Amino acid sequence: MSTPNVQLLLTGNELMTGDIVDSNSAMIAEQLKELGLQILRKVTIADNLPLLVNEINHLAKQADILIINGGLGPTIDDLTAQALAKACNVVLTQHKGALAHITAWCTQRGAELNKPNLKQTILPKGCSIIPNKKGSAVGFKVNHLGCDIYCTPGVPHELKTMLIEQIKPDIAKSLPNDLITDVTRLQVFGLGESTLQKMIDEKLPDWPNNIELGFRSGMPLLEIKLTTNSQFAYQQKELWLPKLLKVLGDHFIAKVDGKPLTLTKHVLLALTKKKLKITTAESCTGGLIASLLTQEPGASSNFEAGFVTYSNTIKMKLLKVPADTLNKHGAVSKNTVIAMAEGALIESSADIAIAVSGIAGPEGGSEEKPVGTVWIAWGKKGHLKSICLLIPLPRAYFQKYVANISLDLIRRELIGSQEVPQYIIEREII
Amino acid sequence: MSTPNVQLLLTGNELMTGDIVDSNSAMIAEQLKELGLQILRKVTIADNLPLLVNEINHLAKQADILIINGGLGPTIDDLTAQALAKACNVVLTQHKGALAHITAWCTQRGAELNKPNLKQTILPKGCSIIPNKKGSAVGFKVNHLGCDIYCTPGVPHELKTMLIEQIKPDIAKSLPNDLITDVTRLQVFGLGESTLQKMIDEKLPDWPNNIELGFRSGMPLLEIKLTTNSQFAYQQKELWLPKLLKVLGDHFIAKVDGKPLTLTKHVLLALTKKKLKITTAESCTGGLIASLLTQEPGASSNFEAGFVTYSNTIKMKLLKVPADTLNKHGAVSKNTVIAMAEGALIESSADIAIAVSGIAGPEGGSEEKPVGTVWIAWGKKGHLKSICLLIPLPRAYFQKYVANISLDLIRRELIGSQEVPQYIIEREII
Repeated sequence: MSTPNVQLLLTGNELMTGDIVDSNSAMIAEQLKELGLQILRKVTIADNLPLLVNEINHLAKQADILIINGGLGPTIDDLTAQALAKACNVVLTQHKGALAHITAWCTQRGAELNKPNLKQTILPKGCSIIPNKKGSAVGFKVNHLGCDIYCTPGVPHELKTMLIEQIKPDIAKSLPNDLITDVTRLQVFGLGESTLQKMIDEKLPDWPNNIELGFRSGMPLLEIKLTTNSQFAYQQKELWLPKLLKVLGDHFIAKVDGKPLTLTKHVLLALTKKKLKITTAESCTGGLIASLLTQEPGASSNFEAGFVTYSNTIKMKLLKVPADTLNKHGAVSKNTVIAMAEGALIESSADIAIAVSGIAGPEGGSEEKPVGTVWIAWGKKGHLKSICLLIPLPRAYFQKYVANISLDLIRRELIGSQEVPQYIIEREII
Repeated sequence: MSTPNVQLLLTGNELMTGDIVDSNSAMIAEQLKELGLQILRKVTIADNLPLLVNEINHLAKQADILIINGGLGPTIDDLTAQALAKACNVVLTQHKGALAHITAWCTQRGAELNKPNLKQTILPKGCSIIPNKKGSAVGFKVNHLGCDIYCTPGVPHELKTMLIEQIKPDIAKSLPNDLITDVTRLQVFGLGESTLQKMIDEKLPDWPNNIELGFRSGMPLLEIKLTTNSQFAYQQKELWLPKLLKVLGDHFIAKVDGKPLTLTKHVLLALTKKKLKITTAESCTGGLIASLLTQEPGASSNFEAGFVTYSNTIKMKLLKVPADTLNKHGAVSKNTVIAMAEGALIESSADIAIAVSGIAGPEGGSEEKPVGTVWIAWGKKGHLKSICLLIPLPRAYFQKYVANISLDLIRRELIGSQEVPQYIIEREII
């Protein structure tokens, strides 16, 4: 048997109207991925009997495994059992195992077994039930047109337990032994999907087909996914990964094990490692950098003070930027951001500072300094560096991008990067 | 013509693997609902050419309108144009309008037109393009087997603008005239969906069936939608709207005409009207309030300085909070936030201040002041008010909620609200 064809049918009016966003299918996909299985197609329809019957037959004809999610509840718009019985041309009948389950469920909770509950015991004749540890509705399984159909509850935590404890082991029993899927994830900052694709096309033209490349933009980081499906491809990946990392340079942040870290978390970890405190002096980003830093738990070990100095008067008053500097060079200038960083270091007693001043727009641009111009200064006292960038994006994106570039400059500083950063702006990375 | 049969095809490996959760289809459903249309079926498949071709044909045979979402990007796994051409049995060719769009897009950003970008101009012969104001990829439309097929970008904010400005009006043209839909939207803060539903059930039990009530949480504001589908229902709405507004009290912010304003924008408009400047002194929100204020263009008229004082030392140094106050009452106390607000008013010369200090968690709570405790002070010099709230939410939600409550307290102050605010925390409003 080759890799089975897995499909998914989600039912529920609330999924069609935009009232709720479906997260169950991502959960199912993630669980199946651990078996090396991918979902080929996912269909979502409203609670409508003829539509459901039709769809079950259509999908069962093509799939080896069909997971139906939702429609097991006690109300009249829960139609899965009814639709499946009709599709399979069998009667609905009370299932003893289901009755035992729901009776125990009610007894345990001191609740009375009511008529809506009893509806949940009426199942297609000949099905086998799937225990539900977390809820009243049992799942059930039938084979129809050669397809194994698993009916599962829509309540996420009920579904999750049932998937992990019951359905995955059941599916695993029927899988061939040679399915080996391996996924490596890399976090990257400052490159967009198409730039990255171009870099790989140019610098690694012989990239092997059996190492599947995928990109996912998780603002502000881009994630590169390298998927292999055989032992041989996995070994090839070990050879090609270092070549890819060389191409990425200091745009590469980290390999992801488990839950990905945010860019801020990477920065805070690097600060903690070097026992450094950071301070921020923000004009055009208006507090966003400070806000990103303090979104992480425990930020107080590395961050004590941030300055939002939106006007010139306040830059002079709080950060001691000389009036002369502002008059001569303007608020958006190398001299001003350096003075802001120096002032913030002194006022806060921090070790390292980041200061930004730019024109977020839509107003305020000039020919010399158009909207999107930004000066950033960063580093330690007496060793401040600065950079001028032009980021012609709408205000909110400009601010996000500048804030994240600022954090990345600190990250590069802390890893001792010698590269001159080149930040490529693309739709996908904002 | 009766109500058209609308179906949806979503493409993207990332939608199948569980890497991202689809929120686009909910957005599409919501937009179509305003035309009185419902989505009958939604199919999601991976980036696989034969599957896509097959599915397009299958859906086009049944539907009057098919919206395809995703697969317009510049990389090789973006296959929508190719699949659609194959399904329609036409060639792919460079579309002059698409080329003009992407050339302008790159010029505007000072970027080079590269090969991956050019791929986005190769479209099925005979299609008409749909402008994309927010991104490089144009949308396109064909009629296939009597079905209008709209191909749309996967990036949410590009999709949204395209839906509202291009696709909805285009679909509306072909709808029968007796679908008279009127939608009134109200912005509300501090009440969740189920609280609101309960208030309406209790205080307006005779609410007419033909004024459909819908709720949409657009963090941090909740939007109430009143939809009517006939002239009679529209007239009834005119009678019932004032009753609803009375129930909402000062939780009601504004009626939405066109693009909804943010809570921040409402605050800035009110400040401008009264010619007032605001300052912020933030501990647990770490700059988020300042950041929200400065996300709006023109914020500099009302905001010059913000203080992020994360440690006690910095509270003393920057805001002149007396050491005695901190020692005696702690950083999370009425006295401290009042002193922070006073300090910020003096240091910034602003007219009105907001100061917050709380325990965002997950660490730092005690029996007396558990995680989620927050003190907020707000108002003018000599007239500062304060409030203590318990907001037992995870860190990021806690910060967002506190920042927005702070803005709402300023809004209430500016409209002269006499109500004691009662903020009801529900899952949907965070």
